[in-house]
Amino acid sequence: MGEVALSNGQSHSLNGYRKSCWYEEEIEDNLRWCFALNSILHTGASQYQDIALLDTKPFGKALVIDGKLQSAETDEFIYHECLVHPPVLHHPNPKNVFIMGGGEGSTARELLRHNTIDQVIMCDIDEEVVDFCKSYLVANGEAFCDPRLKVIINDARAELEAGEERYDVIVGDLADPIDGGPCYKLYTKSFYEFTVKPRLKEGGIFVTQAGPAGIFSHTEVFSSIYNTLKQVFKYVVAYSAHIPSYADIWGWVMASDFPLELNAEEIDMRMRERIKGENRYLDGKTFSSASTLSKVVRNSLDNETHVYTEEAARFIHGHGKHA
Amino acid sequence: MGEVALSNGQSHSLNGYRKSCWYEEEIEDNLRWCFALNSILHTGASQYQDIALLDTKPFGKALVIDGKLQSAETDEFIYHECLVHPPVLHHPNPKNVFIMGGGEGSTARELLRHNTIDQVIMCDIDEEVVDFCKSYLVANGEAFCDPRLKVIINDARAELEAGEERYDVIVGDLADPIDGGPCYKLYTKSFYEFTVKPRLKEGGIFVTQAGPAGIFSHTEVFSSIYNTLKQVFKYVVAYSAHIPSYADIWGWVMASDFPLELNAEEIDMRMRERIKGENRYLDGKTFSSASTLSKVVRNSLDNETHVYTEEAARFIHGHGKHA
Amino acid sequence: MGEVALSNGQSHSLNGYRKSCWYEEEIEDNLRWCFALNSILHTGASQYQDIALLDTKPFGKALVIDGKLQSAETDEFIYHECLVHPPVLHHPNPKNVFIMGGGEGSTARELLRHNTIDQVIMCDIDEEVVDFCKSYLVANGEAFCDPRLKVIINDARAELEAGEERYDVIVGDLADPIDGGPCYKLYTKSFYEFTVKPRLKEGGIFVTQAGPAGIFSHTEVFSSIYNTLKQVFKYVVAYSAHIPSYADIWGWVMASDFPLELNAEEIDMRMRERIKGENRYLDGKTFSSASTLSKVVRNSLDNETHVYTEEAARFIHGHGKHA
Amino acid sequence: MGEVALSNGQSHSLNGYRKSCWYEEEIEDNLRWCFALNSILHTGASQYQDIALLDTKPFGKALVIDGKLQSAETDEFIYHECLVHPPVLHHPNPKNVFIMGGGEGSTARELLRHNTIDQVIMCDIDEEVVDFCKSYLVANGEAFCDPRLKVIINDARAELEAGEERYDVIVGDLADPIDGGPCYKLYTKSFYEFTVKPRLKEGGIFVTQAGPAGIFSHTEVFSSIYNTLKQVFKYVVAYSAHIPSYADIWGWVMASDFPLELNAEEIDMRMRERIKGENRYLDGKTFSSASTLSKVVRNSLDNETHVYTEEAARFIHGHGKHA
Repeated sequence: MGEVALSNGQSHSLNGYRKSCWYEEEIEDNLRWCFALNSILHTGASQYQDIALLDTKPFGKALVIDGKLQSAETDEFIYHECLVHPPVLHHPNPKNVFIMGGGEGSTARELLRHNTIDQVIMCDIDEEVVDFCKSYLVANGEAFCDPRLKVIINDARAELEAGEERYDVIVGDLADPIDGGPCYKLYTKSFYEFTVKPRLKEGGIFVTQAGPAGIFSHTEVFSSIYNTLKQVFKYVVAYSAHIPSYADIWGWVMASDFPLELNAEEIDMRMRERIKGENRYLDGKTFSSASTLSKVVRNSLDNETHVYTEEAARFIHGHGKHA
Repeated sequence: MGEVALSNGQSHSLNGYRKSCWYEEEIEDNLRWCFALNSILHTGASQYQDIALLDTKPFGKALVIDGKLQSAETDEFIYHECLVHPPVLHHPNPKNVFIMGGGEGSTARELLRHNTIDQVIMCDIDEEVVDFCKSYLVANGEAFCDPRLKVIINDARAELEAGEERYDVIVGDLADPIDGGPCYKLYTKSFYEFTVKPRLKEGGIFVTQAGPAGIFSHTEVFSSIYNTLKQVFKYVVAYSAHIPSYADIWGWVMASDFPLELNAEEIDMRMRERIKGENRYLDGKTFSSASTLSKVVRNSLDNETHVYTEEAARFIHGHGKHA
Repeated sequence: MGEVALSNGQSHSLNGYRKSCWYEEEIEDNLRWCFALNSILHTGASQYQDIALLDTKPFGKALVIDGKLQSAETDEFIYHECLVHPPVLHHPNPKNVFIMGGGEGSTARELLRHNTIDQVIMCDIDEEVVDFCKSYLVANGEAFCDPRLKVIINDARAELEAGEERYDVIVGDLADPIDGGPCYKLYTKSFYEFTVKPRLKEGGIFVTQAGPAGIFSHTEVFSSIYNTLKQVFKYVVAYSAHIPSYADIWGWVMASDFPLELNAEEIDMRMRERIKGENRYLDGKTFSSASTLSKVVRNSLDNETHVYTEEAARFIHGHGKHA
Repeated sequence: MGEVALSNGQSHSLNGYRKSCWYEEEIEDNLRWCFALNSILHTGASQYQDIALLDTKPFGKALVIDGKLQSAETDEFIYHECLVHPPVLHHPNPKNVFIMGGGEGSTARELLRHNTIDQVIMCDIDEEVVDFCKSYLVANGEAFCDPRLKVIINDARAELEAGEERYDVIVGDLADPIDGGPCYKLYTKSFYEFTVKPRLKEGGIFVTQAGPAGIFSHTEVFSSIYNTLKQVFKYVVAYSAHIPSYADIWGWVMASDFPLELNAEEIDMRMRERIKGENRYLDGKTFSSASTLSKVVRNSLDNETHVYTEEAARFIHGHGKHA
């Protein structure tokens, strides 16, 4: 309603109404980001997390977990294309992929667009989030029905430690390391070294979302995740992209014991060969720009000394359910 | 944060979530009143107005029309008891009542609690509001089904001018006089004199909601409505009550050509005799207090010279759909 | 937008600017009250409390302590006239008065308007608040210079316990009982019984501000303070008034072992005889209305069983510095 | 105050206080960006614009004109380094520079760091903004005193049309093209063609800030400014950077009739040779990344057909004083 400015001035009251309901997120203690709301589609709580699906005016449907925006309809493609395609494209022939987390389904959706991939394991601890997203995020409906996808409800660490299968790509699509949140132990050096790496096939690539990567925010966890992965893998590439609904630049880090070197043309060529449909955000030049970090961030990453361990964790703003 | 640290830690994240969605109303240009939201139950737009039903944390379900809170579940009883019972109780034997507006149904509900009343006409211009409230405001469901109630969809002025029936009580349950809103012409001297008064039986009483009546806000329209009614009726009584969800004192004015004199005990006695169930807000002492205005307000009303006409209207903050 | 379209178009940008800075107070967890700001005049912190003086658009200069509005320029007269004049007028010949708290100076200002009073002791624990208010609240400048006023920096309880002087009126102008705040122990039965009452002369009257007294909020502390005083004094009168900047009705309770019975005319007469200048809020009829509580509140007070002790305290929303 | 979490839990109330005053900006109708405030340092209004200097918690001192954040202490270096250094470095030997607007002084400051530059003309229409910034923005104090800087108070277009001097670099540091704002006519093809270009020396370079350049927002004016400059100059380079306080990616466009081709190493070398002190944001690799736009933005710019004229202007959200 009220998207049209009528000639008789009706827009005034519609404007009035348009602005009366708001979603408000604390990006930091002193910084708020507020979206006008069309509606609150669903709310719920699982054993682990509070879940809400909001219909926001600026960014469409938005999945909010524990009061933090996870994913917004209009720009989640940036996050998920960046998380999935760089590592998968850098792999010469990726067949099977393990997703830690990813209950929303969008990571699986992007993976399943690759014609080389014949198995995707999505391992999320929170069945209710998975069911919630399956029900409400129609964009991922096809992915959830794809026979190549296997959903496991379990702690990703436990699942990786218990199993024996090895993967071409392992994807960390976990919540940010938040104090008390369920995920911070899955960003540590020992986890990468003793749990993740042994489950990669030779030539395998690990990628993880790596938190805010803005000129000020990249020191929260991005630089530390980068440095931690450098302790475990020979080749590590950090890259970033602006996600409007997050009000910040976001970061990802991919890592392997094999070189991660493709130029823009090679990336474009592999995209054409392997990916069904066209990417909305990522192409070769975009990745080239995304992986050329700005001076401050590049220097921070080069000079970071912090290594993520359970004893020396870093957290970003917010509190998880068990804080 | 974490005042009550529950053993399972839920307080943190619930707190976080509890505060993420808000309804925000501009009481004045420089003053906002914000309710945390559980959900946005329904939104819609009629030919005349934008309508929304919100589920708010502090005040329960709230009906919002054109971006202004009309009625909140937890405290609408204050408004509706004050609008209905004083005039009806002051009448010796009220049989039939005409409601101008009142589409929400709560005014009818309070009227129908009176055992002397055998006919209530509710005349609201906006069929969609009536239908909306009939569907969603369960508290008024019984009233909407009462055979004594007759709902007419029409402009109240046109209806009163076209008809010939006379009433014991006429109730003005209209939106505030807002610039461009549908209602400001129903607060004028000529309307009261030539449309309302001729349709009252001998001994009949008119009552109207009369806008904010706070120590600063009563000069917006309350004093003027009072003074306007004084030009038309011999006896005029203004009274007020605090309505928490409005963040202000609210005012009503009743008027008649017969004396409006009942003491607290007489009011209590008539309540017991005539009203089904017990009032939550109003009793004799409460009305006595409510009709004893504070010094500033009393003086303003006594000294008000403004008379409401179509040419010299006063408006409260906000814009109607046709502004 | 553009209500008053000035020929030079200034309204647009002024509107824009007018709304860009806000003071926001959490009335409750789920309820916010927001004032547009002209400026932040001063901020500071004492040993006990955070202090800020804001220039707000809707309510003028506002004193904020620990994130809670204490007093706003445009309507503090309501609070202070209600706190001071009822007990002082009910006393036949008040000479000396002890204020617990009151560092803002407005309570002293109202007391010093009484021509019978020859000594006012203001005992506030926080020297910085007193100095801050002395410097910035010009309306109280004359009071601070009155030779009848003596300011003591001390804990009011310690001061009352250490001294021997007796008073005609003791005024509790303390912060609300907030968990961790400095004041909640000064609302207990034992404090009233063993500290306050012994320091009243025969015929002496105690009065205290008593927190929010709205139809929902009066059960937070108002009813309990009323009931606690009923355990200690023979005659107890509760009254309330709407304070716009508080977004609620506020309550006060006065108590004595002598009857507190003046009708409206007697109050008006004593005001004329004893008070310099004219009250803005309170007169006889206003007090009559203010002390006739509405049905719900009256019943709650009559039926309250909670007695305030250090072990069984009640708190209103918010956190003091030592929570 | 309140940056430290004291062992006795004092942080609670400080937290409370820290969040009570906010600056709120409407990025779009449905999107707000809110900074906690330390104080409102100065407010004022010139003939053209409303001006405020705020002390914000997340971004330090912030200059707000007509309700839009112009510049924040903690990250204005990103904007100003991006505006100034790319064009100046691409010029083989820049001597004199004309700034359209730039009253804040930061653009002049960055220009004056170049050792080849011997004259900077800053031509701003609003003397009060210039004086305001001279007084309050201490970081630019040195620049305002540099004898190479000449400040002219005039409309930049009138000044350029009236004069005859030619410049090596002309910098457009104007407010965004806002409906009713003073600046939108300085983004048109005819202005670039008939006013700007004739005042460039041979080999001269024009640069302009070009509004938001995010994945959604770049179509507001960025793509159009790029395309408009392509109609007038042979070589046009668009680039962008995230500015945290703007909550978006920002864009700049530089244009010349001579090739604009330097690789990252050449940029770094010229920086070392010509710029006093070290850049905080920009170096060769950063510019390389900044000028490699992401797929969507690149395609939009390539396919943009809109040309900015006075008759066919595009505006970004907000209203200037003369709207």
